[in-house]
Amino acid sequence: MTDNVNRQILLVEKPTGKLAPQNFKMVDGKMPEPKDGEVLLRVRYISLDAANRAWMHGATYRSAVEANTVMAGGGIAEVVSSKAPGLAKGDLVFGDTGWQEYAAVPGRYLVKVPHLEPMTHLLSVFGIAGLTAYFGLLNVGKPKSGETVVVSAAAGSVGSIVGQIAKIKGCRVVGIAGGKDKCNWLTSELGFDAAVDYKAEPVFKALKAAAPKGIDVYFDNVGGDILEACLPQMNLHGRIACCGAISQYDGAPSPTGPRGVPGLIVVKRLTMQGFIVMDFEDQREQAMADLQRWVKSGQLKVQEDIINGLENTPQALIGLLAGENRGKRMVKV
Amino acid sequence: MTDNVNRQILLVEKPTGKLAPQNFKMVDGKMPEPKDGEVLLRVRYISLDAANRAWMHGATYRSAVEANTVMAGGGIAEVVSSKAPGLAKGDLVFGDTGWQEYAAVPGRYLVKVPHLEPMTHLLSVFGIAGLTAYFGLLNVGKPKSGETVVVSAAAGSVGSIVGQIAKIKGCRVVGIAGGKDKCNWLTSELGFDAAVDYKAEPVFKALKAAAPKGIDVYFDNVGGDILEACLPQMNLHGRIACCGAISQYDGAPSPTGPRGVPGLIVVKRLTMQGFIVMDFEDQREQAMADLQRWVKSGQLKVQEDIINGLENTPQALIGLLAGENRGKRMVKV
Repeated sequence: MTDNVNRQILLVEKPTGKLAPQNFKMVDGKMPEPKDGEVLLRVRYISLDAANRAWMHGATYRSAVEANTVMAGGGIAEVVSSKAPGLAKGDLVFGDTGWQEYAAVPGRYLVKVPHLEPMTHLLSVFGIAGLTAYFGLLNVGKPKSGETVVVSAAAGSVGSIVGQIAKIKGCRVVGIAGGKDKCNWLTSELGFDAAVDYKAEPVFKALKAAAPKGIDVYFDNVGGDILEACLPQMNLHGRIACCGAISQYDGAPSPTGPRGVPGLIVVKRLTMQGFIVMDFEDQREQAMADLQRWVKSGQLKVQEDIINGLENTPQALIGLLAGENRGKRMVKV
Repeated sequence: MTDNVNRQILLVEKPTGKLAPQNFKMVDGKMPEPKDGEVLLRVRYISLDAANRAWMHGATYRSAVEANTVMAGGGIAEVVSSKAPGLAKGDLVFGDTGWQEYAAVPGRYLVKVPHLEPMTHLLSVFGIAGLTAYFGLLNVGKPKSGETVVVSAAAGSVGSIVGQIAKIKGCRVVGIAGGKDKCNWLTSELGFDAAVDYKAEPVFKALKAAAPKGIDVYFDNVGGDILEACLPQMNLHGRIACCGAISQYDGAPSPTGPRGVPGLIVVKRLTMQGFIVMDFEDQREQAMADLQRWVKSGQLKVQEDIINGLENTPQALIGLLAGENRGKRMVKV
């Protein structure tokens, strides 16, 4: 709080093509003053998510981000002072703090989180990434032991957890990721049965070899061509958990959808279901208990990709959209 | 059985574009001789279904139909003589008899059906059409009273029943059909709240007016552009029951799918689910009881479109694919 300055990153203009550094600007803002019902937060870690880019296209499950405002983003923050009931100095919270050092946020928009070590796990395995993987795989994908589960963006924050939970549940797991290193990591470190490098080989054919019995559950983080490659390989009554469409976020969305919709959905009696983690709020406790147990036992490995310095946040998001991260990417403010 | 001749219609070649009369040929076949386990059937009514055309593309939920064989098709038939256990002369059965006057079919592929009047109801409301509408709407679409249900091919055999069941369940019902007459019939005779004439008006805009609160359940018989028009108008947690893709059957299937898949599925947390009637075999009794009660009470009107003469079967299918029928089309052999 030195100098009464709050460093902030603004989205100066909405990108029309690929996101670029010049879409952002760092400014020295004023230290915010919390109003009644608000708390003053010191931001500790900012979460980077492909969805940040989708927010720039328009309203999704939240309203669109607008040009010339502080870029929106979730983060873990510490309460500096509070005018909100139920929150006190020193508490840790998760909320949309935006890309800045300090934020004044209404208490009702914040979720109090426990002090745990490392704190970063609150953004990865015990945060939205972990819960999205858990609910999307188990409540939407509903894999049975012995079934084949395929996950795209498999080395990412959600995908890396999806694949490991599927292994815990006794499935054959195939990950789709970009690059040899990521693919090796999936099979040698995380226990995936096979990995497909979409940058090096045609996905349809490689999947056919990696999932010879077909696909029972496809956890889709990317949409586009990879979804199209999976559709004809789905087994009867297969389930597609629609978690995201990363391939469509950075640039203009594709004017068409994947071939085979709805023909293959009918013929194979598939279910495609979209979800977000908030849909399963009532089952959060059970999920957290399972995730904590698996992490403790070593069955679930946590991979984090922590970048230092608020000023590096734009480049961190641009890199994430290009697929350079492994596991959960975040910025230490 | 006069002259020991069995008139048959062969599919002489698989169509590459639109189905045409010259894809078929009528021949005088030999009267079949049932082997052990088979029955000799006299075909009474042949069911015409958009799926007949889909079978020509390749294996679907049944194997593909092949050139220079009797065209496949379901029908109601009477047992002439039986070498199969459980079936006797005079019994009525439903099965894949093909487009011919007589067929020898293994007993295990046939379903015995009750003698009821009119017999044609066994192919319409009490047959696959009625059960498809029932299970697809109630088990897949899961409409709640007060919700908005949209159905395409609404004047067809399945769609006309879907809309009426949705009305019985207290929904606002919008039908999409081709032509003013069909649309008038839906609203004035069948009790639909509104109808959209896809041949006369842009579907997206007309739907917006007809379903001002958005769509909770879309029962999709057609796929293609109409599915694409419905997707952005789906409400949060909406359900799309994928029953068929008529728009894709007659000609080469579209090389792309509807825009918004999977983006809108994620954002709106939609469920798209394919199904066929056989998936719900265990609930058939309840369905039949409900359908019979609704027909008896007059809540469910049955529309049939009966064409006379085996020789007219090819034209009857071609016309069905062009949307000329109202209600369930069949041929009286």
